[in-house]
Amino acid sequence: MVNQSSDTSAASSEPGESARRDPRWQPLAATLLERCDALARCTEEPGRITRTFCSAAMQEAHALVRGWMTDAGMSVQLDAAGNLIGTYAVPGVPTATPASTEKTPRGVLIGSHLDTVADAGRYDGILGVLMGIAVVDALRGSQSTLPWPIQVVGFSEEEGVRFQAPFIGSRALVGTLDEPLLSRRDAEGISVRAALTKFGCDPAAIDDCAIAPGSVVAFLEAHVEQGPLLDAHDEPLAIVSAIAGQTRLTVEWQGEGGHAGTAPMELRNNPLPLAGRWIAAVEELGRATPGLVATVGRLTVDPNVPNCIPRRVIASLDVRHENNAVRIDAIEKLLAIAEKLGREGKVAVATARQHEHAAVSMDATLTDRLAHTLERLGLPSRTMVSGAGHDAGVLAPVVPTAMLFLRSPGGVSHHPAEAVLPVDVALAIETLVELIQDLAIRDATAVA
Amino acid sequence: MVNQSSDTSAASSEPGESARRDPRWQPLAATLLERCDALARCTEEPGRITRTFCSAAMQEAHALVRGWMTDAGMSVQLDAAGNLIGTYAVPGVPTATPASTEKTPRGVLIGSHLDTVADAGRYDGILGVLMGIAVVDALRGSQSTLPWPIQVVGFSEEEGVRFQAPFIGSRALVGTLDEPLLSRRDAEGISVRAALTKFGCDPAAIDDCAIAPGSVVAFLEAHVEQGPLLDAHDEPLAIVSAIAGQTRLTVEWQGEGGHAGTAPMELRNNPLPLAGRWIAAVEELGRATPGLVATVGRLTVDPNVPNCIPRRVIASLDVRHENNAVRIDAIEKLLAIAEKLGREGKVAVATARQHEHAAVSMDATLTDRLAHTLERLGLPSRTMVSGAGHDAGVLAPVVPTAMLFLRSPGGVSHHPAEAVLPVDVALAIETLVELIQDLAIRDATAVA
Repeated sequence: MVNQSSDTSAASSEPGESARRDPRWQPLAATLLERCDALARCTEEPGRITRTFCSAAMQEAHALVRGWMTDAGMSVQLDAAGNLIGTYAVPGVPTATPASTEKTPRGVLIGSHLDTVADAGRYDGILGVLMGIAVVDALRGSQSTLPWPIQVVGFSEEEGVRFQAPFIGSRALVGTLDEPLLSRRDAEGISVRAALTKFGCDPAAIDDCAIAPGSVVAFLEAHVEQGPLLDAHDEPLAIVSAIAGQTRLTVEWQGEGGHAGTAPMELRNNPLPLAGRWIAAVEELGRATPGLVATVGRLTVDPNVPNCIPRRVIASLDVRHENNAVRIDAIEKLLAIAEKLGREGKVAVATARQHEHAAVSMDATLTDRLAHTLERLGLPSRTMVSGAGHDAGVLAPVVPTAMLFLRSPGGVSHHPAEAVLPVDVALAIETLVELIQDLAIRDATAVA
Repeated sequence: MVNQSSDTSAASSEPGESARRDPRWQPLAATLLERCDALARCTEEPGRITRTFCSAAMQEAHALVRGWMTDAGMSVQLDAAGNLIGTYAVPGVPTATPASTEKTPRGVLIGSHLDTVADAGRYDGILGVLMGIAVVDALRGSQSTLPWPIQVVGFSEEEGVRFQAPFIGSRALVGTLDEPLLSRRDAEGISVRAALTKFGCDPAAIDDCAIAPGSVVAFLEAHVEQGPLLDAHDEPLAIVSAIAGQTRLTVEWQGEGGHAGTAPMELRNNPLPLAGRWIAAVEELGRATPGLVATVGRLTVDPNVPNCIPRRVIASLDVRHENNAVRIDAIEKLLAIAEKLGREGKVAVATARQHEHAAVSMDATLTDRLAHTLERLGLPSRTMVSGAGHDAGVLAPVVPTAMLFLRSPGGVSHHPAEAVLPVDVALAIETLVELIQDLAIRDATAVA
C-alpha cells in the first residue's frame, strides 16, 4: 500500500552530502524556509519578531498557514484553544475532525507552535508546523497511500509570553487547559478566555479539543535544537529521548555591608565571595554529573557599588536532567554546599523554590522507529535530552510522541540570530516522510 | 605660658568612664552634637541629608557655622575656593588671614569638610569642623595662652559628588586646584569656577588660598572612623598613621552565552563561575595579607536572566593598603589569578584601571605627640590606617598633619544611620585641647 522510496533513502551514507540525495527534498526545504521568512513578518513589534497568543500578528500568521495547508490538500479548522489544525484525509479512511473520537482516528499528528518569545528567531516552533505541511506535500506528491489521516497542528501558545503560562495550545489537546488557566489574565487584564473569544474561538468548547484515547497514532515534533551539541558534532539531526525535568530556585545570601576601604577583612561578613564559591561549585557539580545542566544565570548584588562591601546577594539556580532522581540529588547537594558556606562565612542563607517539573520520556517504540529511519537514511542517530520544554513534553504522557532536533548553527536560541541549514531541513523532511511510511507499513501489516 | 590641666587628663585610666573625667567636656560635646543636628537640616533633599559644593544648602550651613565661629571669638572669612575659615587670634601674636605668608603664621589648622554624599549621615566631615570650634571654645574658656593663632577650616568640598572630583576645598590649600578642575562641569553643565562665583567667591584669587611654606604649625582632622574597628575593640579614639593607597579597576570576563537548558556543561564558556572563583580569591588574599582590604563591590552579569548562561561578567576591584608595594603586589597577584582562570575556562579577561593613588603618611612627630596625649589621658592609643580618603591626605604632603578617628558605632558610613557617642566626642575634644597645649609648650620652649 505504500510507495516506499528506499532507493532514495540509501543514496548517501554521509551526512551533509545533500547533492547525492534525492533532489526532491531541496525545493520542499526551500519553500519551508521562505515560509519561515513570511511568518517572521507577522509581528507585533516592527523590526523584531514577537507574536503572542491570539494577537493580530497571530491572525496574520494563521491566514498564511491556512493558505499553505489548503494548498497542500488539507482541510483546515481553528479549534477552541486557538490551535490551527490542517487535516490531510486519506481516500477510503474516515475523515477526522480536531475533536475526533476513537472511532474517527486523527492519525499522525505533526506540529509545533506558532507563537514566539519577544524578539525571537524565525524557526523555534514555526519550523515544526511548516515541516508538517512539507511532509504532507511530499506524501501527496509521491501518492503515498496511508492507513490514517495526517493532521498538522500549529499550536496557539507554547512560550508563555502573554499570560506568563506556557503550553496553552497543547494543554487543550491533553485536557489540562483548565478553569484557572482560562481565567488567567495578561498584563492588560484580559483573560485567556476573553482573548480566545476575540480571536474567533469558543472557549466553552475547550473540552472538545482533547484527544480521545487511542485516536492518535503518533505525535511528531521537529524543532531547532536551541543548543550547540549537533553543531559541535557536525551532525544534522538528533532524536530527543526525553524532556529534562527542571528545578528553578533562588538562594539569598544575607551578610553585612560596609565601606570597602574602612572595614578590615576579619570583621567582614561579605556574602559575595561565598556566593562566588557556590557558583563555582554549581559549575563543578554540573560538569561532574553526566547529563546534568546547572546554571546560575542571574545574580543580584546589593548595593552593587565598587566601594561598598556587598550586604546581600541573590543567585538564581536552574538545574535540569532527564532523570528526576539525579536532578533532585544535585539540588540537595548544592543547597547543602550553600548552607555550609553560609555557616563558615557567618552569612544567612535562604532558599526559595520557584518552579519544578518532572522529566518526560518520549515514546520508546516510536523513538526506536525514528532511530531506524535515520540509520536507514545513513544519518547519525544521536539521542539527546531536551533541556528546554516543548509541546511534545505535554503530549507525551497521552499519545506516543517522538521529537526530532535540527542542528542550531552556533547553538543560538530565542534570539534573532537563530538559524537552521537548508540541508538539515531537507534531511528532516525526508526523515519524517520515511518514518511515516515506515509506520504506515507496520500499521498496515498489523491490520493485515 | 600655658594653663595645663594635667590633673584632668589623668582623671581616668579607663576609656568610656566619662563620669570620672573633667565635666567641662560634656557640655562642649553636647553643643557640638546639637550643631550636627542643625547642619543636618541644611539639605538639598527634604528628608535626606545631601549638601554639595556651593549649593544653597551649603549657604545655609555656612551661615550657621559662621555664627558659631563668631560666638567662639573667631574672625571668619570665605576663601576663594569656598572654604569657610575662622581665625582665633592670640593677643600679641600677628593675626593671620587665610592667604597668609610665612611672616604671618596661620598657626594650627583644625578642620574637615562641610559637604556630604547623597543621603548622608550627620557626622562625616562636619564633626571635624565643629570639633575645631569646640576646641577654640575650650581654649578660650580656659584662657590658654598660645604662641600662634588657630584656624578652624570648613572645607567646601571633599566627597566629589557634584563634580565627580573630590577634595576641591583642600586642594586649594595645597595649590593643586588647577585649571582643569576649575573648568570641570557638573551634570547641569556648570563649571567649578561658575559655581564658586555664584557662591560669592572670586575664582581668580584661587592661588591666594595656598598655604605658604612653613606658615602652618599643624593640621588636625578629627573624623568618624567610618569602619567597625574601634567599635569592635570597644575603644573611643584612634590615631591615623596613614591614608591607604588605593587601586580601583574592573575585570571583564567575556565568555559565551546560551540557553541554560540546552547547552551541555562541556560546551559552555560561562564566565560567571570563573569570576566567582576569582572573587573568592580576592577575599582570600585580603584575609591573608595583614592590613590589606580587597573588595569586589560591583558585579555586572550579562544578560542576567535565570535561564540564560551568562555571556559576560564585569567585576570591580578595590584594593587598599598603607604600603604601596603591598598593594601593587596584591593587584599583580589578583590579575594573574584572573588571567589563569580565564585561560583555564577559555574566557577572555580584560582589565581596565580606573583610579590609583599612593598611600599618604601622617606626620610622624605630630602623630607621636597625639599618641603621648592619649596615653597621658589614660586612653588607648590604637594606630590605624584610614581606608577612606580625607582632607588630611591632601594636606599631609605640605603641612605636618595628624588625624584622630572617633568610634563609629556599627561601623556605618555614608548612611543616615552613621553615629558617634557623646562620650567619645567629649574625649576627642579633650584630646585635641591637650595636644594643642602640648604643642604650644613645645613651641614656646623651642622659642625660648
